Amino acid sequence: MNSRIIVALDVTNKPLNWFIDFIDATKNIVAGYKFGLPFLIRYGLEGFMEISKLIDNKHYWIIDFKLADIAPIMINTVNQLVEMGYNTYIAHAFIGLEGGLFELKDFLSKQNSKLVLVASMSHKGSLDIIDKCLLNILEIIKKLKPWGLVAPATRPDRIIEIKKFLFENNIQAKIFSPGIGVQGAAPGTAIRVGADYEIIGRMITLSSNPIKIIEEINKIHREIIGVDHK
Amino acid sequence: MNSRIIVALDVTNKPLNWFIDFIDATKNIVAGYKFGLPFLIRYGLEGFMEISKLIDNKHYWIIDFKLADIAPIMINTVNQLVEMGYNTYIAHAFIGLEGGLFELKDFLSKQNSKLVLVASMSHKGSLDIIDKCLLNILEIIKKLKPWGLVAPATRPDRIIEIKKFLFENNIQAKIFSPGIGVQGAAPGTAIRVGADYEIIGRMITLSSNPIKIIEEINKIHREIIGVDHK
Repeated sequence: MNSRIIVALDVTNKPLNWFIDFIDATKNIVAGYKFGLPFLIRYGLEGFMEISKLIDNKHYWIIDFKLADIAPIMINTVNQLVEMGYNTYIAHAFIGLEGGLFELKDFLSKQNSKLVLVASMSHKGSLDIIDKCLLNILEIIKKLKPWGLVAPATRPDRIIEIKKFLFENNIQAKIFSPGIGVQGAAPGTAIRVGADYEIIGRMITLSSNPIKIIEEINKIHREIIGVDHK
Repeated sequence: MNSRIIVALDVTNKPLNWFIDFIDATKNIVAGYKFGLPFLIRYGLEGFMEISKLIDNKHYWIIDFKLADIAPIMINTVNQLVEMGYNTYIAHAFIGLEGGLFELKDFLSKQNSKLVLVASMSHKGSLDIIDKCLLNILEIIKKLKPWGLVAPATRPDRIIEIKKFLFENNIQAKIFSPGIGVQGAAPGTAIRVGADYEIIGRMITLSSNPIKIIEEINKIHREIIGVDHK
């Protein structure tokens, strides 16, 4: 998929059909979709089941519950979604390894699913503790080697710092960046400093013309990365 | 309620009626019930709706999604459960204040609901980052003044440290301690060092005689605290 956009589907005032139509209309112009706890609360496992009929190998189908519990609870939480084919899961790096992320990563790997760890968040409160612990969080990432990371477009310096650490330690990990649009960062902000994907929600989903917005953002991304940016 | 037990209802291999019968049979001998993401995944909002018919003012009805996201997502997640009457919500102190816990606490306060913050976790991975940041976490707690805290029975020293901080800073906050039973700590471990409640799951819910186990643990707690411990 020749796009660097992940659409965060956190709208909850639409019928389930809206999501099916939305995905159908946008799947050729975005890289993937992200579903959080608001989706789970509103549409339940049945909602995920309906959406799962659209799952393919060309997109990321990201479950973003910001998992941050002990291993048995996290595994019990994602278990049925893994079986439905959702292939990517976001958890917090800060909860640590033994009894937490080690077992989660092991479980996901065995199911051909990917783990993405939150390295830093997009809101200001992230500075209170998470960003102060960035070195500790990066040590967790070095040990666990997750498939991907989350780092905020609202603080591009943080992405640069993380990219540098990954490069110096020869760690391969995709970087996903939230914070574009309503949260304040302009499209392209994260891609420009080396993120692989920008996670964009309300700017697209609340728009009266989501396809136009997506195409405009794809154009911005292409201008940053160059035409052959696959 | 003259008990220090919160039952963690993380079993997912039972019909919903099991929970209703379980709560009915145990409500006079426990202080409250805790529901996590496994319950939400398995029984959905309809499950919470059914259980909400049993909600009273005498128990804690705790939603433990280990919330750790930006404020709009956390509020959108708990919104409908608050309306149903679930009165207590667990979030991670780690995610910080502005754009995170400030707005969540404000939302919950306006709905007469309580916020409980995770100060430390029961698994070993908690030592990797969370426990290294305990002083930062306690500063968040000092600023936010949540109604309650979570601290692990598996590391009673941590509870002692937290109690000392609360006392020195004249902060009132109930302490809830997971980690009893399957996770390794003996019943009474946390109460003995000053926790207010022990959160107990599988030791009770997987038992062939939950009521007997609960009564045995209540007896242990009474022996520690004294008879008039309300």
